[in-house]
Amino acid sequence: MTRLRFQQGLDELKQKLLAMGGLAEQAVDRAVEAYRRRDASLCQLVLQGEPPINMAEREIDELALDLLAMQQPMAVDLRFIVAVLKINADLERVGDQAVNIAERVRDLLELPRVELPADIPSMASMTRNMVRQALEAFIGADADLAEMVLRMDDHVDRLNRETFRSVNELAQKSPEAARQAIDVLLISRNLERVADHATNIAEDVIFWVRGADVRHHFGPHVPSKAGPGGESS
Amino acid sequence: MTRLRFQQGLDELKQKLLAMGGLAEQAVDRAVEAYRRRDASLCQLVLQGEPPINMAEREIDELALDLLAMQQPMAVDLRFIVAVLKINADLERVGDQAVNIAERVRDLLELPRVELPADIPSMASMTRNMVRQALEAFIGADADLAEMVLRMDDHVDRLNRETFRSVNELAQKSPEAARQAIDVLLISRNLERVADHATNIAEDVIFWVRGADVRHHFGPHVPSKAGPGGESS
Repeated sequence: MTRLRFQQGLDELKQKLLAMGGLAEQAVDRAVEAYRRRDASLCQLVLQGEPPINMAEREIDELALDLLAMQQPMAVDLRFIVAVLKINADLERVGDQAVNIAERVRDLLELPRVELPADIPSMASMTRNMVRQALEAFIGADADLAEMVLRMDDHVDRLNRETFRSVNELAQKSPEAARQAIDVLLISRNLERVADHATNIAEDVIFWVRGADVRHHFGPHVPSKAGPGGESS
Repeated sequence: MTRLRFQQGLDELKQKLLAMGGLAEQAVDRAVEAYRRRDASLCQLVLQGEPPINMAEREIDELALDLLAMQQPMAVDLRFIVAVLKINADLERVGDQAVNIAERVRDLLELPRVELPADIPSMASMTRNMVRQALEAFIGADADLAEMVLRMDDHVDRLNRETFRSVNELAQKSPEAARQAIDVLLISRNLERVADHATNIAEDVIFWVRGADVRHHFGPHVPSKAGPGGESS
């Protein structure tokens, strides 16, 4: 019975984390759509969406703590709960990035419109896929899919470097457009950070699913019967 | 005996986290010093310092997992271990920011030197204090000090906004200096992110020390005898 309730708790934790992921994705989508359509009301929606995301984060943390306190979890459940705690923090920060983007869009809306040499929609769709697939890897306990997400990060970095270069050129050629150029550069950085969070989530999925292997890769700490305080100091 | 070993494990966890904090602080210090002295070799040191920080993060996670698996921790110990897991992730990302700064400095070193309207050393010393005091709040389980850190974040945000404005002016007046202006803007954003991580750490300290209160502030999830799956869905 206790075990059953624990299992139900784990399921609830997973569902809550996915709902949280939905909120974070929606926030980024809206912020990018606000950029594309130059829509101040969408910016406003993104800002209003932040407190619910923060509250969802706190609820997930508390549920995870309750589960940790409930019974002696098995190693695999422990890793799952710890992965949830980490993914949760990353999703909250994806939401923060959406807010940052919305603020840059609001700045842009007060400036004359100029042609900007940055393909924000492409970058956004790439980072969106990364977040989506990282969460799918989480749902399916799919470490291979998580590894694909890690590889996708290189594309986003490349797009980001191109944006840096082209925005610099614009600022030098058209100083009157420098502020717009800087705004769009910062938006591109914010999207890069979303991709970084997706990467973190993918790493947490790998940590959970392939616990022992990741451990083996990363250094000298090996669990021993001597327990903590042993060889790893 | 088991309880004693568990207690030793918690102490070891704290020590390791503080050592990790030292590495992250050192990385930021070196990156800022590289900026101030235009020193490529310091940039190199920062880049070389990243893998050890990543390894330290993984070791701390594993030790925390071992402790969670070792016995049924009491609620206060659980909150402590979860706080360590979260602080650990933030410190690793402070190290990432140091790397980002070092990369911008390397870009600057390849460009003509110009007078830049950004007080990076002041911003750096402010964010450094935030990280330091967040860790001191952690050592002393001092929620009041942690709250001071939260308030310091406003100063960093203000400095960052000033930098945004002055860098924009420079880019418009002196287009030939636009790239340097953008580099220094990005460095200032990286420092702001360090301050954000310090803020996260301070929040985790408050979560650990004042568990019940924070819980009360943040929403409807109340621990109940019914356990998870109850009212908080």
